[in-house]
Amino acid sequence: MAAPSRETQPSSASGGAGGPPAGPLSGIVVVDLSRVLAGPYCSMVLSDLGARVIKVEIPGQGDDARTYGPFVDGRSAYFASINRGKESIALDLKSADDRAIFDRLLDRADVVMENYRAGTMERLGYGWERLHARFPRLIYAATSGFGHTGPYRERPAYDMVVQGMGGIMSLTGQPGGEPTRVGTSVGDITAGLFTAIGINAALFHRAATGQGMMVDVAMLDSQVAILENAIARYFATGVTPGPLGTRHPSITPFEAFETGDGWLIIAAGNNQLFRRLAGALGHPALAEDARFADNDARTAHADDLKAALEVILKTADTTHWLGVLSEAGVPASPINTVADTLADRQVLARNMVVGLGDNRDSGDGLHPVLKVAGNPIKLSAFADPDRRGAPPELDGDRQAILAWLDSGA
Amino acid sequence: MAAPSRETQPSSASGGAGGPPAGPLSGIVVVDLSRVLAGPYCSMVLSDLGARVIKVEIPGQGDDARTYGPFVDGRSAYFASINRGKESIALDLKSADDRAIFDRLLDRADVVMENYRAGTMERLGYGWERLHARFPRLIYAATSGFGHTGPYRERPAYDMVVQGMGGIMSLTGQPGGEPTRVGTSVGDITAGLFTAIGINAALFHRAATGQGMMVDVAMLDSQVAILENAIARYFATGVTPGPLGTRHPSITPFEAFETGDGWLIIAAGNNQLFRRLAGALGHPALAEDARFADNDARTAHADDLKAALEVILKTADTTHWLGVLSEAGVPASPINTVADTLADRQVLARNMVVGLGDNRDSGDGLHPVLKVAGNPIKLSAFADPDRRGAPPELDGDRQAILAWLDSGA
Repeated sequence: MAAPSRETQPSSASGGAGGPPAGPLSGIVVVDLSRVLAGPYCSMVLSDLGARVIKVEIPGQGDDARTYGPFVDGRSAYFASINRGKESIALDLKSADDRAIFDRLLDRADVVMENYRAGTMERLGYGWERLHARFPRLIYAATSGFGHTGPYRERPAYDMVVQGMGGIMSLTGQPGGEPTRVGTSVGDITAGLFTAIGINAALFHRAATGQGMMVDVAMLDSQVAILENAIARYFATGVTPGPLGTRHPSITPFEAFETGDGWLIIAAGNNQLFRRLAGALGHPALAEDARFADNDARTAHADDLKAALEVILKTADTTHWLGVLSEAGVPASPINTVADTLADRQVLARNMVVGLGDNRDSGDGLHPVLKVAGNPIKLSAFADPDRRGAPPELDGDRQAILAWLDSGA
Repeated sequence: MAAPSRETQPSSASGGAGGPPAGPLSGIVVVDLSRVLAGPYCSMVLSDLGARVIKVEIPGQGDDARTYGPFVDGRSAYFASINRGKESIALDLKSADDRAIFDRLLDRADVVMENYRAGTMERLGYGWERLHARFPRLIYAATSGFGHTGPYRERPAYDMVVQGMGGIMSLTGQPGGEPTRVGTSVGDITAGLFTAIGINAALFHRAATGQGMMVDVAMLDSQVAILENAIARYFATGVTPGPLGTRHPSITPFEAFETGDGWLIIAAGNNQLFRRLAGALGHPALAEDARFADNDARTAHADDLKAALEVILKTADTTHWLGVLSEAGVPASPINTVADTLADRQVLARNMVVGLGDNRDSGDGLHPVLKVAGNPIKLSAFADPDRRGAPPELDGDRQAILAWLDSGA
């Protein structure tokens, strides 16, 4: 029932050598008003899938993330890492001239994204209902702290706010210890990922119906969505769960243990793996102990089990035990630093550390220092290039974007 | 260039009253071999978007998650929370009869998912290349610990393993403290989300080309992808980042502070918000202090700033300061328990706690105890129902699925 869809024809104005790689979203144009992290992380994922992302930034100021350190050659490494391969045009959405340009961009866009508080786009005259009436195929994605409905809809939020409100901090940390944040911005990132899912699903729906839709994702909602078994446990038992250090609440052994020289994570979540673990450690009798007979028993006696395992594990170093457990097929790992992770041979083999283009040179060279995370979505139909384009200068693509709009291509 | 696509016609065999809600993926059939969390979390997201998910489980045993507590009426609440609204058929993929059924399922499926180690599906005769040759439209999604390429491709992994290897644990916790796990299974969940993005993008691509593709997502890769600014900081400075408690590495103030009766999170990440914060606390001079003049200065003097703010904040309780900062438009929050979060009026208004159908009664009632997380992807084109279907009994939908296959509908 669908007319031949525009999105199946690649845009003739690609981002050039520094633009997105070829992917399932090649030809899709994303106009991105979002700032800092949740929205830009989402549009980075879309870019990695082939979409052309045009950042619309505030003149003279730009994305707040441009001001976040550390800086390399005066430019934010933080900004670079999530805005690689995007384009930038600075528009004042309160100026008539710039609104005319923005309108022309929307007319050519498949997706418009923003992460303002609810109500901001309406005040600018670009609320969903008006946009949908004017551009029925346009998909509108809003990623906000609290969403576009509900009593908190106009409140501001950042990652830390939703980590605190969303319950994940109550599950993270040492029992009885100080509050502990998840060490990366999962409040933003998970909202960005759910938004990316919604946009892709909306594109799929549009391919069949020709109609765009609004995708409304809240950071707080996304935190609730990743509480996972904590919700079921709370409703099933009435007990409010707390932080458990490295222990899993219902799978044992599934935590970090002390060895002779550090720590070792063991994840032996079923009886077969636990028997293998006991054998590999040279203490097969552990698997015959009634306290450790099945996962429920092991969870009930987790302290006893930890003590018994650490007596053994402290007799040798982490590297020794990693070898022994690898040989036995028991899932285990070290606790890597970021430096360890980024040098890991599997991480490198999977192309998860990629080069960044450097827009100060001829366009062929990579930046001498900065590298960024690769795309974890590996697709058989497309290559997975080992570099991404340079991040845009504020308003750096204005002329090319205006020429593209004029060309009608 | 696309032929009219099958996926635009809703399947005539829906899951019935307990099946998925209507959504952009209505009519899509997902055959899901995956177990425990990463894969099932992904197919839960697809189900929330309208896809029909048929779990293919091992006869007599089923998904390992069925054995994880706590149990309600003898059934795993953990399993229920992520498998709501799916169907189940038990098939032995080493038996010729069951393989014939599985082949018929694949012939009707849009997506097949699995989270075995690399090589397992090939050994069963269902590797990507064979499947693609037989079913060119079929999308094959593999979510594994380490992916289908690279030196660790055949190693087993669980959430704790990739949290340890992927660097996020090195960023989470108190400085100098014990290792700390992120309190929910972000290793699994982020891999599930990236897989869901890949499947949706592949469906979009198939709508244009008629061709399926393989989506290969590794849990370890997904952990690298969410390290976010830690990667840029490491490459920009050469310094290996460590855990910071609740502090953000490059935005200040952006952490938890002690109040008169507990904790308060303040996220005032730019100069305008910091001036507002200083004013709201009755100490506007803080914003004139050279140590706190901009975000970089505040980050360099984060300890001084924390001390200065806590002197003020300890003079009243958390609730008082939440009111003051809300009035001033400064992002702030309490550190909620899971119980607090699930009772929060915004969370409830956003329909993020939904009822679970109970397959022991007439089919109309909700389970008296269990509730589950709602769908954070709110779409203007579809309703967001406040209940989800019951989780399937092992092999509980065999007859209905066989009848559907026979009907050819």
